[in-house]
Amino acid sequence: MMTFYQKLNTISLKNNSLVCVGLDSDLSKIPQHLQKTENPQFEFSRAIIDTTHDLVCAYKPNSAFYEAQGSKGIRELEMTIGYIKRYYPDIVIIFDGKRADIGSTNQGYVEYIFNRLDADAVTLHPYPGREALKPFLDREDKGLFVWCRTSNPGAGEFQDLIIDNKPLYQIVADNVAKNWNTKRNCGLIVGATYPEELHIVRQIAPDMPILIPGVGAQGADVQKTIEAGIDKEGLNAIINSSRGIIFASQNLDFADKARQETIKLKDLTNQYRRNQ
Amino acid sequence: MMTFYQKLNTISLKNNSLVCVGLDSDLSKIPQHLQKTENPQFEFSRAIIDTTHDLVCAYKPNSAFYEAQGSKGIRELEMTIGYIKRYYPDIVIIFDGKRADIGSTNQGYVEYIFNRLDADAVTLHPYPGREALKPFLDREDKGLFVWCRTSNPGAGEFQDLIIDNKPLYQIVADNVAKNWNTKRNCGLIVGATYPEELHIVRQIAPDMPILIPGVGAQGADVQKTIEAGIDKEGLNAIINSSRGIIFASQNLDFADKARQETIKLKDLTNQYRRNQ
Repeated sequence: MMTFYQKLNTISLKNNSLVCVGLDSDLSKIPQHLQKTENPQFEFSRAIIDTTHDLVCAYKPNSAFYEAQGSKGIRELEMTIGYIKRYYPDIVIIFDGKRADIGSTNQGYVEYIFNRLDADAVTLHPYPGREALKPFLDREDKGLFVWCRTSNPGAGEFQDLIIDNKPLYQIVADNVAKNWNTKRNCGLIVGATYPEELHIVRQIAPDMPILIPGVGAQGADVQKTIEAGIDKEGLNAIINSSRGIIFASQNLDFADKARQETIKLKDLTNQYRRNQ
Repeated sequence: MMTFYQKLNTISLKNNSLVCVGLDSDLSKIPQHLQKTENPQFEFSRAIIDTTHDLVCAYKPNSAFYEAQGSKGIRELEMTIGYIKRYYPDIVIIFDGKRADIGSTNQGYVEYIFNRLDADAVTLHPYPGREALKPFLDREDKGLFVWCRTSNPGAGEFQDLIIDNKPLYQIVADNVAKNWNTKRNCGLIVGATYPEELHIVRQIAPDMPILIPGVGAQGADVQKTIEAGIDKEGLNAIINSSRGIIFASQNLDFADKARQETIKLKDLTNQYRRNQ
């Protein structure tokens, strides 16, 4: 059995790609011709997956857009993850739900995300601390991405508060890197919209995977992101683009256009990796 | 249309109760005779609701335990919330999912929790800050409980870090009370396991609802909790017990036992309210 770190590096090397496609499969933005199908969110995601699977290291289904359709949406999320597991089992699946509660409740989330959906990784909030998140941290076979620096303009409200000369987001990075990661299954999330903060987090956690959303629709600079985010081997930066890829076209050609955008991002990221 | 604050106060006065029953409807802990029914989590919750509806101000379905059963569980969560809305529409429903992402993703959660499920309130993480949580904060008709002090033993890892002589959890309380609550729809969550911190948060936010988990199975002191948590009118403290009520018996009498435990907690809380 591969660890999460091994699975991520294996697929990154095999597909020569740091690109993660975010499946923000918002029903209202899905092409018209799919709206009439029985499982539009699944059909949409499947088409994107089929045209991009050789170009990516990971898919990141965004739970909110499936939850927006209630139990029907969750069913389509189950189908989407099941499809990736069946046909492209070497690609990493990151369940993006930003969960985190206290201990006994987290067991419910672990059951759902890791046992039932069988996702490879999950995104988590840091706020309740390590002790609360033990049910996640105990899973040696899975990956846990802790939100360190969010990509939104107002990220600094709490994350930049200074504690002993250090902003809170650095304390989160420090604690996860030094105290939480005893089973070597932790990663961090840092928005590409904050390349300086990303650079600092990479210093704090030189060999941990960093999930980096914010390129594409959120407009971050790819060169700065790559230079700040990759590790010494040019790996372990997961560059996520969602809307910029999956909604590149809203017509019949949406999956082909998604492929073109994924190729562009893959080539661009690889160009800056090589320049390092 | 009542605001959330009005709805909460109206039912608290009508039922003379600050008690919230947490629907942590873990399938593995549900009585044996319900396991064979088609919708065991719904049947279980419904029976508890039917025997306790005149004793509570709120129900708090815990999303994790429904998610643990995948789309089937979410269907039963939809049925459970629909049942309360239909038969006991004046009782507050708090969707406990500890959500929070950046802006566009939060629109998906808002669609799910407020438009589709039609819950009255949601629990949120503070980490991405006010600007990110705008889609929630814009909902004048709903309630938003921001996690301020978690009830777990390791809560202090980040929440007690000192910024300008003040721990982080107090900054969260301050910001929510002073900057986030322009639409008068915010509340805070403070664990009953930290009565001193609860007392301080009540000073910071004298008239905001505080959701207080941690009595019952987590063992907090009810007297201290009430004395620290209520506002000047003896209201706006929502005392949540989950496992201590719903799993008081795992036999055929589970719903009657749940009623007995709810009466006990209601009487105990009201006794200390009167002593103020």
